[in-house]
Amino acid sequence: MPAPQSRPRILSGVQPSGKLHIGNYFGAIKQHIALQDEGEAFYFIADYHALTSLRGAEDAEAGAAAKNKSLTARPAREILRDNVRDVALDYLALGLDPAKATFYRQSDVPEVCELAWFLSTVTGMGLLERAHSYKDKVERGIAAGVGLFTYPVLMAADILIVRSHLVPVGKDQVQHLEMTRDMAGYFNQAYGEVFPVPKERLGEAAVVPGTDGQKMSKSYGNTIDIFAEGKALKSAVMGIKTDSTPVDEPKHPDACNAFALYRLFADGREVEEMADLYREPMRGADGRGGRPFGYGDAKQLLLAKIEAYFADARERRKELVRNPALVEEVLQAGAKRAREVARVTMQLVRRAVGMTDRPT
Amino acid sequence: MPAPQSRPRILSGVQPSGKLHIGNYFGAIKQHIALQDEGEAFYFIADYHALTSLRGAEDAEAGAAAKNKSLTARPAREILRDNVRDVALDYLALGLDPAKATFYRQSDVPEVCELAWFLSTVTGMGLLERAHSYKDKVERGIAAGVGLFTYPVLMAADILIVRSHLVPVGKDQVQHLEMTRDMAGYFNQAYGEVFPVPKERLGEAAVVPGTDGQKMSKSYGNTIDIFAEGKALKSAVMGIKTDSTPVDEPKHPDACNAFALYRLFADGREVEEMADLYREPMRGADGRGGRPFGYGDAKQLLLAKIEAYFADARERRKELVRNPALVEEVLQAGAKRAREVARVTMQLVRRAVGMTDRPT
Repeated sequence: MPAPQSRPRILSGVQPSGKLHIGNYFGAIKQHIALQDEGEAFYFIADYHALTSLRGAEDAEAGAAAKNKSLTARPAREILRDNVRDVALDYLALGLDPAKATFYRQSDVPEVCELAWFLSTVTGMGLLERAHSYKDKVERGIAAGVGLFTYPVLMAADILIVRSHLVPVGKDQVQHLEMTRDMAGYFNQAYGEVFPVPKERLGEAAVVPGTDGQKMSKSYGNTIDIFAEGKALKSAVMGIKTDSTPVDEPKHPDACNAFALYRLFADGREVEEMADLYREPMRGADGRGGRPFGYGDAKQLLLAKIEAYFADARERRKELVRNPALVEEVLQAGAKRAREVARVTMQLVRRAVGMTDRPT
Repeated sequence: MPAPQSRPRILSGVQPSGKLHIGNYFGAIKQHIALQDEGEAFYFIADYHALTSLRGAEDAEAGAAAKNKSLTARPAREILRDNVRDVALDYLALGLDPAKATFYRQSDVPEVCELAWFLSTVTGMGLLERAHSYKDKVERGIAAGVGLFTYPVLMAADILIVRSHLVPVGKDQVQHLEMTRDMAGYFNQAYGEVFPVPKERLGEAAVVPGTDGQKMSKSYGNTIDIFAEGKALKSAVMGIKTDSTPVDEPKHPDACNAFALYRLFADGREVEEMADLYREPMRGADGRGGRPFGYGDAKQLLLAKIEAYFADARERRKELVRNPALVEEVLQAGAKRAREVARVTMQLVRRAVGMTDRPT
């Protein structure tokens, strides 16, 4: 089944795993949301998947609270609930438009779990045993759970349940999409053509450095959150690590985290201007009371850019926070639409193997 | 959650894998059906599970048809459909009473697949890796599939979705029930008490020899089918292997397959009488025109017993075959009842982990 020429179906999922940072934004979210103008887009909040890391998150909060009395540890169910709500707010605030795209909670389309079973019966163990992501996680000390191991099967079901043609992925997800293609092929071969074999869309995602210069990642504690503001945002930005070049000496823009982050927000002319200031710190010093341009100045400009860049999204998010019923309505309408598609898929699948139609 | 004193919930599943034989009957079906008088019984036809062996069955039919032109190979979907229908007819004919017990197709309660995902996220790989049944199957040359590997998780979901207290099992299933208990415990520990921890009921099941003296099993080709009749039944019974003791010499009843099978159908007095005839072949020879009692006579008596024993069931089955709508009605009513219970379970599970209620 080739993709229709006009409107390919596009699927993208997001893990509800806490606050999103600007690495998430420039690395994935921005490109993913843009796809809502390219085809029939489905975005889901992967709360079934989140169960594989939820108890780890609960333990982490309990551990943090034991060390720091000012923190309160939430039970797993509250963490999941809060994270799902937050990611819904975040995506809607950042421009996901429910009039263009179908936005839903994975767990509101339980058909994916049924499809995962069908796929697991046509998939050999070798395919899952070769998965890098599982091996990496277990090597990093995460408990080798069955859900973690069969994760790629549920992921394939997420994609195939809407019979998606196109899946935007990061480099670390390419193997999962290959596995999905394999599983679609195994099923089609065993029972007849049911699934289009989905293609990947490799984003030209920016590499976003964290405040310490490593890749920005929650696990490194070096993030700048998208919806941070005021003091929290300021202290994150001001805390960006820079080198010890004296303030009045020329600095290397390309070796500086603050500059790399500024690039993401500023236009070409602004980026050039800042690069010049790095190289010639006394340039335009009059406007700074005669002071040379230092890293602190660069961070102030970056801070202003971040504030401005996300100002509208921040406003929208606040509005949405005040209106939880609206968010719930969007997710339920999305689930309704996604389930319509999912149910058609499951009828095709069930008929192909000789089962009765799915009960409604 | 302890079992209520009065009506424990009992669950039992049957694989739709072709014609049932008297080894199935005396080894499991008879005891399982009797349980409908002991509690709130749920019986399901395990068609999701059947997918793990369906393509093997398809290949086997194709192979047989290639060798023997009088055979027609069915595609997988027809095999599944026929097997599900047959096992429904068989159980209803053999006395499963839909007024007492809930009888349904597994695939009509897709909630089990959802529950299986939840269980897989609290279960370590080690538990599944230790499963004998998976290891045995792979050693016997069955392809190591993901569905075969995660089979115990779906089986646990089957049991836990109705929050069953009691599960009748054969010895080869004891480990699966232990795994189910483990998974129920893992979930309860992680998210709070949702599942009663089910107990096993080990049947005092008869060991039924096949026509060649090995355990009766379809894979040995030594079965006598419950609903065989006429020539087919006669040739199966007459084909029972016996030793070469001359007809007029004393024979050992306890070393004879025909005698062992006769035991299952006859009462104590009849069994004694036949044992005497084995030991003294000329006993009552007058009634046989002076002939000694030989294995052929024993088989004739066995044949008559089998005919009589299943006569009513055979009649009921024929009536049901003429009335497929009635069978479908029973299965749908069963599914409706089972889903009511399953949905309550899934609400409990989803709330425990912090999800919204399951969409209807």
